[in-house]
Amino acid sequence: MTTATATVNVLSAEDVLKNWQGHRGLTRRTIEAFPEDKLFSFSLGGMRPFGEMAMEFIHMAVPIVDGVATGKWVEYAGNKPTTKSEILALWDQQTKELNEKFPAIPPHRFAEVDMAFGRWEMSGMGTIQYAIDNEIHHRGQGYVYLRALGIEPPHFWER
Amino acid sequence: MTTATATVNVLSAEDVLKNWQGHRGLTRRTIEAFPEDKLFSFSLGGMRPFGEMAMEFIHMAVPIVDGVATGKWVEYAGNKPTTKSEILALWDQQTKELNEKFPAIPPHRFAEVDMAFGRWEMSGMGTIQYAIDNEIHHRGQGYVYLRALGIEPPHFWER
Repeated sequence: MTTATATVNVLSAEDVLKNWQGHRGLTRRTIEAFPEDKLFSFSLGGMRPFGEMAMEFIHMAVPIVDGVATGKWVEYAGNKPTTKSEILALWDQQTKELNEKFPAIPPHRFAEVDMAFGRWEMSGMGTIQYAIDNEIHHRGQGYVYLRALGIEPPHFWER
Repeated sequence: MTTATATVNVLSAEDVLKNWQGHRGLTRRTIEAFPEDKLFSFSLGGMRPFGEMAMEFIHMAVPIVDGVATGKWVEYAGNKPTTKSEILALWDQQTKELNEKFPAIPPHRFAEVDMAFGRWEMSGMGTIQYAIDNEIHHRGQGYVYLRALGIEPPHFWER
């Protein structure tokens, strides 16, 4: 890579948060698109229902931002929703928390390598990127569930 | 967002290429995991077979990097593989081309807004990010196809 291009900075922290919240808005609409009972029961190929995948995103988002910000990796210990409206309320609470907490990440922590939750050794940005990519990956699976249920998923390109 | 954090640069062009090629390696292993006939025929919920999704990635990757680099948006005009080995050969050719072409993107083009393929108005980085996110999204769908076929997909976290 030419030195000039290799080192050009292409994303700011603000861009990353905006991109993530755009994806999170799409994931919210994906949760909403599921009929209540199917959210917690329907699956294909022996995989988890989409409600469980959504809870995985919730287990990752704020705890990861807290960990990157502070170096303290604390597992999610909030409530475990059993209805769609409870998941959505938790989602909205995390949206607000992310908007508050992400900007408070000390700049040097994005590049600093840490052991997330005592298990995953990555830079702060690497761990945040993993959470975003994991959400996109499993949300894509939720789209297959919706299609198989005869439901049109939200447009992927709308954020 | 505090000014210090908002503007901190968290990803270089080199990071983005490395992340993308990591994802592309995983997508390659996903293509490989499909039995030849299922790659072009199997689907769920009326969606496209994974071979068609893989071709969509090929239509996007190098043409997008060419477009961001040069401002000329030229649709993919290469061959249309009909076998798994042909797709994989094309994949490997693009891997090499991306490693050559990405570093030649003029630094200012990542932030510059352009109309990709005459249709999508985004910054160069936004268009590249869209290609990566789209690949993660549809590859996740390929995982459901594999699971439904009784095949264990490659580990998501291995890049």
